[in-house]
Amino acid sequence: MQVVILAGGSGTRFWPLSRRAHPKQLLAMEGERSLLQSTLDRLDPLVPPADVWVCTTRTLAADVRRQLPTVPGDQVLAEPTGRDTAAAIGWSLRSIPASARSQVAAVLPADHRVGDPEAFRRALASAAEVAERDRRVMTLGVRPHRPETGYGHLELGETLDAELGVRRVARFVEKPDAERAQRFFAGGQHLWNAGIFVFPTEVMLGHLARFEPELAAGLEAIEESPGQIGELYPELKKISIDYAVMERLDDLGTLPLDCGWSDLGSWKSLAEELPADADGNVVRGDVVAIDARDNLLLAEEGTVAVVGVEGLVVVRTADSVLVVPKDRAQEVKSVVDALREAGRDDRL
Amino acid sequence: MQVVILAGGSGTRFWPLSRRAHPKQLLAMEGERSLLQSTLDRLDPLVPPADVWVCTTRTLAADVRRQLPTVPGDQVLAEPTGRDTAAAIGWSLRSIPASARSQVAAVLPADHRVGDPEAFRRALASAAEVAERDRRVMTLGVRPHRPETGYGHLELGETLDAELGVRRVARFVEKPDAERAQRFFAGGQHLWNAGIFVFPTEVMLGHLARFEPELAAGLEAIEESPGQIGELYPELKKISIDYAVMERLDDLGTLPLDCGWSDLGSWKSLAEELPADADGNVVRGDVVAIDARDNLLLAEEGTVAVVGVEGLVVVRTADSVLVVPKDRAQEVKSVVDALREAGRDDRL
Repeated sequence: MQVVILAGGSGTRFWPLSRRAHPKQLLAMEGERSLLQSTLDRLDPLVPPADVWVCTTRTLAADVRRQLPTVPGDQVLAEPTGRDTAAAIGWSLRSIPASARSQVAAVLPADHRVGDPEAFRRALASAAEVAERDRRVMTLGVRPHRPETGYGHLELGETLDAELGVRRVARFVEKPDAERAQRFFAGGQHLWNAGIFVFPTEVMLGHLARFEPELAAGLEAIEESPGQIGELYPELKKISIDYAVMERLDDLGTLPLDCGWSDLGSWKSLAEELPADADGNVVRGDVVAIDARDNLLLAEEGTVAVVGVEGLVVVRTADSVLVVPKDRAQEVKSVVDALREAGRDDRL
Repeated sequence: MQVVILAGGSGTRFWPLSRRAHPKQLLAMEGERSLLQSTLDRLDPLVPPADVWVCTTRTLAADVRRQLPTVPGDQVLAEPTGRDTAAAIGWSLRSIPASARSQVAAVLPADHRVGDPEAFRRALASAAEVAERDRRVMTLGVRPHRPETGYGHLELGETLDAELGVRRVARFVEKPDAERAQRFFAGGQHLWNAGIFVFPTEVMLGHLARFEPELAAGLEAIEESPGQIGELYPELKKISIDYAVMERLDDLGTLPLDCGWSDLGSWKSLAEELPADADGNVVRGDVVAIDARDNLLLAEEGTVAVVGVEGLVVVRTADSVLVVPKDRAQEVKSVVDALREAGRDDRL
């Protein structure tokens, strides 16, 4: 199996820790290893680094290679500019040498958390088995453990393999409102779309050629004239793999994933994943917390001291500090927008 | 008139901005001048720097001289160790040369705010006039503009000078509880004790000798053998001037002070004194505030970003950040205590 890790994200939801030159996937959110490194780590022993491809941006490529010294340097692909996931996956698959294109490939995001790597590998191996056997595109859908309005959902269809638990994906459902999310959760017929796909490489390239012939032609031109990627890549159609392929398939299969998955989409979701102390505070770095409850307190550099606060995110870096209620953690985006509008490149 | 400025405080209530080596009186809380410099500034033109004495600690003396270049260097007195205000005032008065001891002297704290310096000078000049005429110790009491449990109060007695508005101080009242504070405020017969005194120098030295003969003898020994101050000063009785003298006087006079006074006793009281923006935020330095109300947001170094918070104090310095609700700002003391117990001298 070949693995493509998508590591081009420039997320701002972990500002001030995440920056343009140091986005979420390159950060160690728990322990010492970055999310990207952990993504590679959890493939072992299923997939060795020699069979891993990482698609990132020119800005980040050097850091990615530094973080992943066991992945061959030319398998870290640097997009001249971001063109969304269909282009990134297509280019990555076309970078796989002909000798390995008959294999199954998996696509993984670089910035998610998996609490149970063994369960993750089992599901990935099963999905690869089905993908190869059925010549089918498979997706790993996360089994919901709460109602969730933040993720797209996969509606489960007929059973394709009763023994392995493979179901057809009846349809993709965009992020639901609270009421629908509650219904989905109660009904047990929906999974979260985690952006994890497994498929025979040639099958996916065939789907791309069929559904997005222009994009496929562009990718072929790049494969033929790799020296011209700087001109050709920015012209590729910007479309997600969901829109380009996944939502158009009538034989997409899915396997439910129960592996302590989180997309770590915000400071709040990070706080929910990390262990808290007796007062409910998740603490990292040099922190003094007095009569404080249920906060995320993170000192990357220097000291964070709080007294009498509850439910807050307080993150201190060498040059900035963010204070926001956990329940409004998504709004850190407004801070980044304000800094961008003010031309504060030194803080982005 | 000679003026003694008491600048030995090591207050921790403005942590992380105030530190042992850089206490409140040396900080610029508004504008460019420190509270100590502003204390000197507001004496002009009533008292020139040549007639000002500053009593501080050995740790702070060099910084005090640097901040007050117009005050003669040998009039910045450096206590070997703090022995409370009676010793500091007694030593300062005994440092005034014999030729000036016939004059009136005023004692002023170094770390208060005065919104109307002209009104302050008028009151100080009137108090000096009465002190000289009556050979009386005078105090300037702040006329309350709210019930206040944080200050000692002066209860007003008989009228001593109807024209100038001088009243006898009937008694000192320790910090009252909320109910008494409300009664004092409503009754109009109490002033706040601001620690501002004016008296004929010889009269005050006489009171010290009468009420605290041991302390007075110690001070005399220091005057006779200034080279031995390092051994003698630490032996002086540690007592406040209020306990040593003021509360024991039956002819203490007072003049009410209406000059926008604040002792800036906490981050909260600072926030109340400084101008706020349309959202009620008091902002200093590089701050991004989004949907935030009634906060004190202070970035001494780096960027402070807040979203959706209300009534908070957020102070960021080069090495620390403090987050505390305004109404609990007094509890910053707990942070300082915790740091002290943890041996964190680098943050004190």
